[in-house]
Amino acid sequence: MGLPLHARVDLGRFWTTIERSAQIGQGRPGGLARLTLTDDDREMRDQFRDWCHEAGLEVTVDRMGNIFGRRTGREDDLPPILIGSHLDTQVNGGRFDGIAGVLAGLELVRSLNDLGHVTRRPIVIVDWTNEEGARFSPPMVASGCFVGRYEEAWCHDLTADDGARFGDELQRIGYLGDAPSKGGPVDAYFELHIEQGPILDAEGRQMGVVTGGYPSHGMRVRFEGETAHTGPTPMDLRHNALIAGARFLTAVDDIGWDFAVHDGKATGSRLTAWPNKAGILSETAECVADVRHPDLITARVMAEKMRRAAQEAAARAGCTAVVEDEWFWGGDIFDPALIALVRDEAVRQGWNWRDIKSQAGHDAYHMALHCPTVMIFTPCKGGITHNNRESCEPEDLEAGLNVLLHAVVQHADR
Amino acid sequence: MGLPLHARVDLGRFWTTIERSAQIGQGRPGGLARLTLTDDDREMRDQFRDWCHEAGLEVTVDRMGNIFGRRTGREDDLPPILIGSHLDTQVNGGRFDGIAGVLAGLELVRSLNDLGHVTRRPIVIVDWTNEEGARFSPPMVASGCFVGRYEEAWCHDLTADDGARFGDELQRIGYLGDAPSKGGPVDAYFELHIEQGPILDAEGRQMGVVTGGYPSHGMRVRFEGETAHTGPTPMDLRHNALIAGARFLTAVDDIGWDFAVHDGKATGSRLTAWPNKAGILSETAECVADVRHPDLITARVMAEKMRRAAQEAAARAGCTAVVEDEWFWGGDIFDPALIALVRDEAVRQGWNWRDIKSQAGHDAYHMALHCPTVMIFTPCKGGITHNNRESCEPEDLEAGLNVLLHAVVQHADR
Repeated sequence: MGLPLHARVDLGRFWTTIERSAQIGQGRPGGLARLTLTDDDREMRDQFRDWCHEAGLEVTVDRMGNIFGRRTGREDDLPPILIGSHLDTQVNGGRFDGIAGVLAGLELVRSLNDLGHVTRRPIVIVDWTNEEGARFSPPMVASGCFVGRYEEAWCHDLTADDGARFGDELQRIGYLGDAPSKGGPVDAYFELHIEQGPILDAEGRQMGVVTGGYPSHGMRVRFEGETAHTGPTPMDLRHNALIAGARFLTAVDDIGWDFAVHDGKATGSRLTAWPNKAGILSETAECVADVRHPDLITARVMAEKMRRAAQEAAARAGCTAVVEDEWFWGGDIFDPALIALVRDEAVRQGWNWRDIKSQAGHDAYHMALHCPTVMIFTPCKGGITHNNRESCEPEDLEAGLNVLLHAVVQHADR
Repeated sequence: MGLPLHARVDLGRFWTTIERSAQIGQGRPGGLARLTLTDDDREMRDQFRDWCHEAGLEVTVDRMGNIFGRRTGREDDLPPILIGSHLDTQVNGGRFDGIAGVLAGLELVRSLNDLGHVTRRPIVIVDWTNEEGARFSPPMVASGCFVGRYEEAWCHDLTADDGARFGDELQRIGYLGDAPSKGGPVDAYFELHIEQGPILDAEGRQMGVVTGGYPSHGMRVRFEGETAHTGPTPMDLRHNALIAGARFLTAVDDIGWDFAVHDGKATGSRLTAWPNKAGILSETAECVADVRHPDLITARVMAEKMRRAAQEAAARAGCTAVVEDEWFWGGDIFDPALIALVRDEAVRQGWNWRDIKSQAGHDAYHMALHCPTVMIFTPCKGGITHNNRESCEPEDLEAGLNVLLHAVVQHADR
């Protein structure tokens, strides 16, 4: 028994779940501030778990707080198809970033229930913990743990700016589950996400087939200097780590502009200094920065310029620089067969679509290390995101949801 | 009855008080972290109050927590001579900055008690609250209140980074006194302080007569941008306030180097951004910076360059800049007659001394608006200060203490 070719999700029902989610952890007008492992996150998780139960899914939680809702397959021992994203947001986040992907999975399952369709392989919908990294850095740790990139104990020891420990907060909100945080075999991973960029909206496209991610190099650098009085200390005897950090972030921004003409980007996103007080030169500063470029080699050149900028900034300020962490993601990581499957389905349904590359990080990048993976992008107004003005209409999601439905079922039934 | 010409303070007794103070609110090895209005500050205040009582002084506390220890004069209705400084420190502070000046006043009074000398005018020793501004910004608010520059209610509403309110903390530690925070008539103000610069130590001088302060302009600037995703947002659509702040502090540091050859200095000392997180461009940033130069006009030019740098940094980052606060201090503010008195006494006692300008801010700058004022500097090793390695030997203080003793008594007896 196949899925009827004209089968469609219930867009109104999907939208109701988006609106319910938008009530939990409200931030600035229209936006959300639902930081991971807070009481708001718990409330949203409880709601999601209830929805899963109502849809007849078997819910498990693993030791990283990832929530899995499993729908039985006809051959239930086969590895499942995973569909998911995240329900946490940035501190000034929107109502769709991540959330749309999790609730797309839920709507897919509800639609299959309506149609009385049981897929050959089981289907699992997943909410990944702490995709954003807005409270606990780095981001995407829980999907990283699932694929074996991070150790569970290391993740549990992460500390937030507010002093809270990741593992303690998991326990506090009741989402330190029993299931192992390292995942088992997965047949394929699908993630629907808003584009978080302006391309689909500007071109009037209804969806994007994500063929890969912009190669992205990031780093966290620590500058060390020495406290001294801001007044009498001569310029050439200063070791002001705050200035090392400021010079580094300025240089990173310059790198972004140097490569902007071919869509390169460079970002200084975080600077913390100590003591960071009027009257005293700072002893330490820590910066987070990254560079992104569609071309792999160019991104690597930008990363090397960023590394040198850190050393030069330190030298200019009489400080030392230590790279505490470096990361890379992106490239042509998604599965060609799944990309072709999604493209074909978009053609068959007659949507206005295009191939597109992701410029943001996603849990799908980790999952691509674990199993064949693909992403579907849906348009968002003006590409505005990580902002309470992030905005979509129900019809912006229609193509993505329906292509996801048919592509997943075809893949699960093969 | 005059003071015997050979009268000297008890250097060993003075040093004992320095060492007792160095036990309260210890920070890094050899240093102090005795932030204003903390429990450590209370313990030091209690000790100081006890010492004042033991020396027969009448202790009063005003509504800004300033502690006054009054020694009766022969003509007790005449305006008093004030001697003081501050007992609070930076977060990585030394054992002498401020402290030496308050305890110099105490030792002076104890020496007069030993000598059985009662001055014509009363003498008052004072510990000013929150000179450092390390917990509550701006610094020197309590002496500023005394001279009418700041309003008491405004000061009580200051909030620390830890969320505490100035007025509440005064009350909590028991130093919200009854005396009005606006001061009455004062005959003259003397402040002894370590130089906090390398000049006296490098030249082997035993003390400095402070003729004025480096003209210093400071400002607090707020940059406003907009949150957005660090990945897909094109460089030309960014409004990253963190980058505006980083560019501003970089430009300020450049100004310092441009004027370094004639002893100009420029400092970026503080940058706070929001959200200041990996993955998101920051909406706001706040910076504190200042410029200092021995020449009044040059300092003014540097200040104007700093102001323009704020606007240029904002424009480069697609943000706006608002100057939230500006301040100026320094110039030839000290009293020529008192300067001459201190110089003459240094000559008479035969010390190796020089005229010197202060490059740091001091409560004396405020007091100079209120009454004739002068400062005495004593050497500190290598000029290192606002650092736990701040270091003095007893003999570094000997000239300053004894010149202070005779200059104050001459002035009080005139």
